[in-house]
Amino acid sequence: MKILVLNPNTSATMSAEIDAAARAAAGPGTEILTTQPNFGSVAIDSAAESYLSAVGVMDIVAAQLASGTFDADAVVLAGFGEHGKDALQEMLEVPVLDITESAAHVAQLIGRRFSVVTTLARSIAPIEDRLLLAGLAAHCASVRACGLGTAELDADPAGAVKAIVAEAERAVMQDGADVICLGCAGMAGVTGAITDALGVPAVDGVAAAVGLAQMLVGLDLSTSKAGAYAPGPDNVRTYWPLSKALGL
Amino acid sequence: MKILVLNPNTSATMSAEIDAAARAAAGPGTEILTTQPNFGSVAIDSAAESYLSAVGVMDIVAAQLASGTFDADAVVLAGFGEHGKDALQEMLEVPVLDITESAAHVAQLIGRRFSVVTTLARSIAPIEDRLLLAGLAAHCASVRACGLGTAELDADPAGAVKAIVAEAERAVMQDGADVICLGCAGMAGVTGAITDALGVPAVDGVAAAVGLAQMLVGLDLSTSKAGAYAPGPDNVRTYWPLSKALGL
Amino acid sequence: MKILVLNPNTSATMSAEIDAAARAAAGPGTEILTTQPNFGSVAIDSAAESYLSAVGVMDIVAAQLASGTFDADAVVLAGFGEHGKDALQEMLEVPVLDITESAAHVAQLIGRRFSVVTTLARSIAPIEDRLLLAGLAAHCASVRACGLGTAELDADPAGAVKAIVAEAERAVMQDGADVICLGCAGMAGVTGAITDALGVPAVDGVAAAVGLAQMLVGLDLSTSKAGAYAPGPDNVRTYWPLSKALGL
Amino acid sequence: MKILVLNPNTSATMSAEIDAAARAAAGPGTEILTTQPNFGSVAIDSAAESYLSAVGVMDIVAAQLASGTFDADAVVLAGFGEHGKDALQEMLEVPVLDITESAAHVAQLIGRRFSVVTTLARSIAPIEDRLLLAGLAAHCASVRACGLGTAELDADPAGAVKAIVAEAERAVMQDGADVICLGCAGMAGVTGAITDALGVPAVDGVAAAVGLAQMLVGLDLSTSKAGAYAPGPDNVRTYWPLSKALGL
Amino acid sequence: MKILVLNPNTSATMSAEIDAAARAAAGPGTEILTTQPNFGSVAIDSAAESYLSAVGVMDIVAAQLASGTFDADAVVLAGFGEHGKDALQEMLEVPVLDITESAAHVAQLIGRRFSVVTTLARSIAPIEDRLLLAGLAAHCASVRACGLGTAELDADPAGAVKAIVAEAERAVMQDGADVICLGCAGMAGVTGAITDALGVPAVDGVAAAVGLAQMLVGLDLSTSKAGAYAPGPDNVRTYWPLSKALGL
Amino acid sequence: MKILVLNPNTSATMSAEIDAAARAAAGPGTEILTTQPNFGSVAIDSAAESYLSAVGVMDIVAAQLASGTFDADAVVLAGFGEHGKDALQEMLEVPVLDITESAAHVAQLIGRRFSVVTTLARSIAPIEDRLLLAGLAAHCASVRACGLGTAELDADPAGAVKAIVAEAERAVMQDGADVICLGCAGMAGVTGAITDALGVPAVDGVAAAVGLAQMLVGLDLSTSKAGAYAPGPDNVRTYWPLSKALGL
Repeated sequence: MKILVLNPNTSATMSAEIDAAARAAAGPGTEILTTQPNFGSVAIDSAAESYLSAVGVMDIVAAQLASGTFDADAVVLAGFGEHGKDALQEMLEVPVLDITESAAHVAQLIGRRFSVVTTLARSIAPIEDRLLLAGLAAHCASVRACGLGTAELDADPAGAVKAIVAEAERAVMQDGADVICLGCAGMAGVTGAITDALGVPAVDGVAAAVGLAQMLVGLDLSTSKAGAYAPGPDNVRTYWPLSKALGL
Repeated sequence: MKILVLNPNTSATMSAEIDAAARAAAGPGTEILTTQPNFGSVAIDSAAESYLSAVGVMDIVAAQLASGTFDADAVVLAGFGEHGKDALQEMLEVPVLDITESAAHVAQLIGRRFSVVTTLARSIAPIEDRLLLAGLAAHCASVRACGLGTAELDADPAGAVKAIVAEAERAVMQDGADVICLGCAGMAGVTGAITDALGVPAVDGVAAAVGLAQMLVGLDLSTSKAGAYAPGPDNVRTYWPLSKALGL
Repeated sequence: MKILVLNPNTSATMSAEIDAAARAAAGPGTEILTTQPNFGSVAIDSAAESYLSAVGVMDIVAAQLASGTFDADAVVLAGFGEHGKDALQEMLEVPVLDITESAAHVAQLIGRRFSVVTTLARSIAPIEDRLLLAGLAAHCASVRACGLGTAELDADPAGAVKAIVAEAERAVMQDGADVICLGCAGMAGVTGAITDALGVPAVDGVAAAVGLAQMLVGLDLSTSKAGAYAPGPDNVRTYWPLSKALGL
Repeated sequence: MKILVLNPNTSATMSAEIDAAARAAAGPGTEILTTQPNFGSVAIDSAAESYLSAVGVMDIVAAQLASGTFDADAVVLAGFGEHGKDALQEMLEVPVLDITESAAHVAQLIGRRFSVVTTLARSIAPIEDRLLLAGLAAHCASVRACGLGTAELDADPAGAVKAIVAEAERAVMQDGADVICLGCAGMAGVTGAITDALGVPAVDGVAAAVGLAQMLVGLDLSTSKAGAYAPGPDNVRTYWPLSKALGL
Repeated sequence: MKILVLNPNTSATMSAEIDAAARAAAGPGTEILTTQPNFGSVAIDSAAESYLSAVGVMDIVAAQLASGTFDADAVVLAGFGEHGKDALQEMLEVPVLDITESAAHVAQLIGRRFSVVTTLARSIAPIEDRLLLAGLAAHCASVRACGLGTAELDADPAGAVKAIVAEAERAVMQDGADVICLGCAGMAGVTGAITDALGVPAVDGVAAAVGLAQMLVGLDLSTSKAGAYAPGPDNVRTYWPLSKALGL
Repeated sequence: MKILVLNPNTSATMSAEIDAAARAAAGPGTEILTTQPNFGSVAIDSAAESYLSAVGVMDIVAAQLASGTFDADAVVLAGFGEHGKDALQEMLEVPVLDITESAAHVAQLIGRRFSVVTTLARSIAPIEDRLLLAGLAAHCASVRACGLGTAELDADPAGAVKAIVAEAERAVMQDGADVICLGCAGMAGVTGAITDALGVPAVDGVAAAVGLAQMLVGLDLSTSKAGAYAPGPDNVRTYWPLSKALGL
């Protein structure tokens, strides 16, 4: 099967990291296709950038649908805490998996209370919002931030792992978490470091989403079109898809 | 004071109706400036269009900020159930009022349980989501839809009023609402019709938001920049503002 | 317009402070009339005193209604955490604003999570109860007490401000509040001190209630009489209004 | 042991009915002393009357404490949905039982979901509020009203029983209740009629409160004075107790 | 009246302690009959042992019912946090009281927020689950563990009391509890020690359940058979009752 | 990989149906081993039978562990609404999937609100309890029963499908569900019938659990042993495993 993985930011480095994580999680016979928006922000650290990224991934899919080049059995939206999953579910017939929700679902299958460890403190609120709206907040012990932004994570990977493990330890000791969800995409080796140091399972959202996508495709299940995710009416839009209007 | 009212869709007709409602609610000395996105959808009936509209209103504000032409004491986002308020709060120092939340706040001040009556059934879920995230769901008796889309409302205003009043009556009789919030923007005369027919107050979100904007400006209060609405980091963005990249 | 402000305790000093706060918040053309019960308690620090104060403010209004001297476009109940708002809403056609709820509504418009800082620890429970019943608990980060009673606040205003700012800092740092509501009435200058020290907006309930009262009157909205706040049946009462029976 | 039963309204007929219900529930060796306020309302059908009744029962207890005539091992507040329990808990060392909460506690011990059937629809909201504040809402299937006021109940007892049983049947069939709480005080024979007709247990609040009072006294347990129910500070009050000031 | 007290583990020492606690709480004329399963675990410190204990107490009752020797007016299930109450309610016509729920009900009657202090940390989760399912979580401030297992409690009773009082103090000071529930069965003297040291009431579940059982029998109330606790269909079972199949 | 599927009742017919459903959902290379308890009930229609079934599946696993014959990469507990998953998680290192929770997780991935359609009305309460404890109740629109017991389902499969589809239709039309979970195990063809008739996806718990088990094994994730599911202390047990004591 083919899984289209959408990195919602415009960083090619991040896309490569997400692609590697997705490939590592994919089973035999699963093809991973990772891409990123044609416009937007190199990192997503605000509500504004989150909306921009949602339109960016919608634009990729709309352009593929318009040109008849969309060809995937499932789609993974690889932004932790970002908007856009419901829009993709409206636009597509195949399953759409979001890495925030996927990590939380998998965490609940293997533990009683999970915590999310993300990058900057300002990402806590949107992650809490996503979990609340997805009906996945009841067993969330906490959403915590290690205090390092994307640039810092890239500049000092070893230091970043240390900071994330330290925050995960607080989640386990102070908040009672028995599973940790990694609250960002594309960091290799962190889940292993958490488990080695703390003895708790750690869930990477990209891996979880790829695993769940394979599961849904295997069971021949896809998004219900009888409710919130039915396609919308055919309203007139201008400059859409934006990438085409921009000549990209 | 000046209030910038943002219609999130691209319909000039709707902008005119919203503008009229805002002017009717404004106090003496308040200037209303209503505008609409340079790209997007003529009506907002899906999650995809809601995200597109959020980026559309962000684009208006970003372009004004970039050109030094932003000049308002408060901003009203006039989409019922639409995304984008938090992004505008991040971008601006002045208060930002959303008509969904504004209607709900005002309803709670004058009643015990409110219902929202919106257009199409597919708008119920996003309105419920906005109220839940805003912490305003506890006294919401129901969100109901009259079943008529924007085009139908425009084509037969008298029939539309009748359908909305009928749905509001169900909210009062079956769900126990004692206040009705009108779940769309720009419909003149509907709140009066509801109150005349059912004897309950009816709240128009545009009027509520204008009133609350004036209140906040009068009390010299604005969005806290110490938490979720602090400005984000200065990430590199491409093709932003989109309207400038599009040459609009 | 005229706003009747009801201090629920019998302290003339407190009435004067509340009156000053209300006048400072009032717009041009708004007349503030502040009064206090004819019997009751000089401060309200218990459930018993809260009920007594509710009957005290009901008595003022009942006496004015009986004598035909009630003349206000809105009423503000200026007790933080005190009972009585719903009774006044039943008795009156004009809007009734409670300072606890008003502060919370305004806080939610300008922030994501608010904390209340009140006087004594024993006031925390009734404030939590008021917020829960009003459907305003979901975004309340905490209700905290500075540990000083009314007498101490009056005796050492500078020390009181310091204690309140210190407690507000804990709310911001430990509980994640980005807005502070001042949990008592009549303290001049505290909101400014909080904002200066902590960089977060601070909301005074009296100012919030006056602002919201003006907003409702401006929008021609008042309490719904179709539900919980309909006038009750005409039951026989003895010694009512109590102040008349007492010969006051 | 002696149990002081406080009817919060001024109806001697109602006091007699409550007294009979309490006596019927009392064990051997339990003495029931029923009384009513010296001022207030003959029936309690509004928030205003509920506050007045709270002050009325506080006044009885304050006068007894002041004169040294208080002599009871427990107190029962016999108003369904009325305010005042917490004030009495502050004032007294002995246990205070409220019939609303007592009925709900007993119902949860013998069933999975209970409904309350009260008199007028306007009593539903305050009963819901009492249950929510008492932490007893989670297993409440519904609060329903039979539509008859106190006067009507008295005028046609047989018709009243029929109406209450019919409403209880809706609670069982439509809301899934397996226990019914009688939402008013002083009606003989109704619980038996409900059980006979519907095969579900029915709980009378007065009986439940007397039973729980005996239980607490038997276990030598009383209200915690270490938290919300500690006595308040010794604030100056005027015209208190009101009955003394009124010369009653 | 006769109360059958079921210790869910197989420790005769524990049964004796529970029996003593039940007798101390029983009124004149109440006969206490304490027993324990014929198979199972000597202590219950896991979900597995909790299910085994539920079947153990079901087996006792089933065997008595089969042999016609069941003779009790009420049953008390004396395991704190253990499963089984609903099964016994299905099997029996007389009231069944669980000590976890009984302690919580009594605590809510005498305080605003209660904490449970149990033995090992691993018992916290099942106690939280029982309270949540029973609709008794809203006023639970915390469930805490003193860190000592059953064997340690028995080996050093004085040290155990000290550890429990220390944990109860944290519940009062840090979590705001004003009542403590003792989260295990059969420890003499601990409730007195808590009250002496901290000035808050402490509730022993066995005493609470015996008191509530007497109350229900006194009011002639028992489990509703119209809902969840109706007897199940007559399905074929093998090796049931297990004790008979085991030849015990 | 090998998946051990545990039918919690003693019906060989049901085991065969569950086995077929599991095999149909298994991927290539997955071996399904289905078994059932050595004692217990032929169907599970009460809390008592649910506890008995939990001990029955524990007994299977304990006997395999004791004899060194346990050989599976994951375990599926195939009882809808039954107890026991947490006990198996304590006992085992490999992942344990429960069909109730698995169905709900999968439903949330493909829809906004799901309903469960089960057999008898008395199964509704335990299913609601499982979902609440698992933190999966927020998006559950309803749990409904078709009114047919296991025997009736077996006797008239065509009629059973019709009744289940009719109840599912009520869930969609009245409760707003856009996904249906089949609330029992072992019924072939029902999910297809629901989707054909109503146009909504239908989830079979056995298939969902097998799919999720394969996903977890594929991602090398298993139950956290750092919290609630750590193995319990080594308490003395008598007659355990029961099947060995029974000579089975």
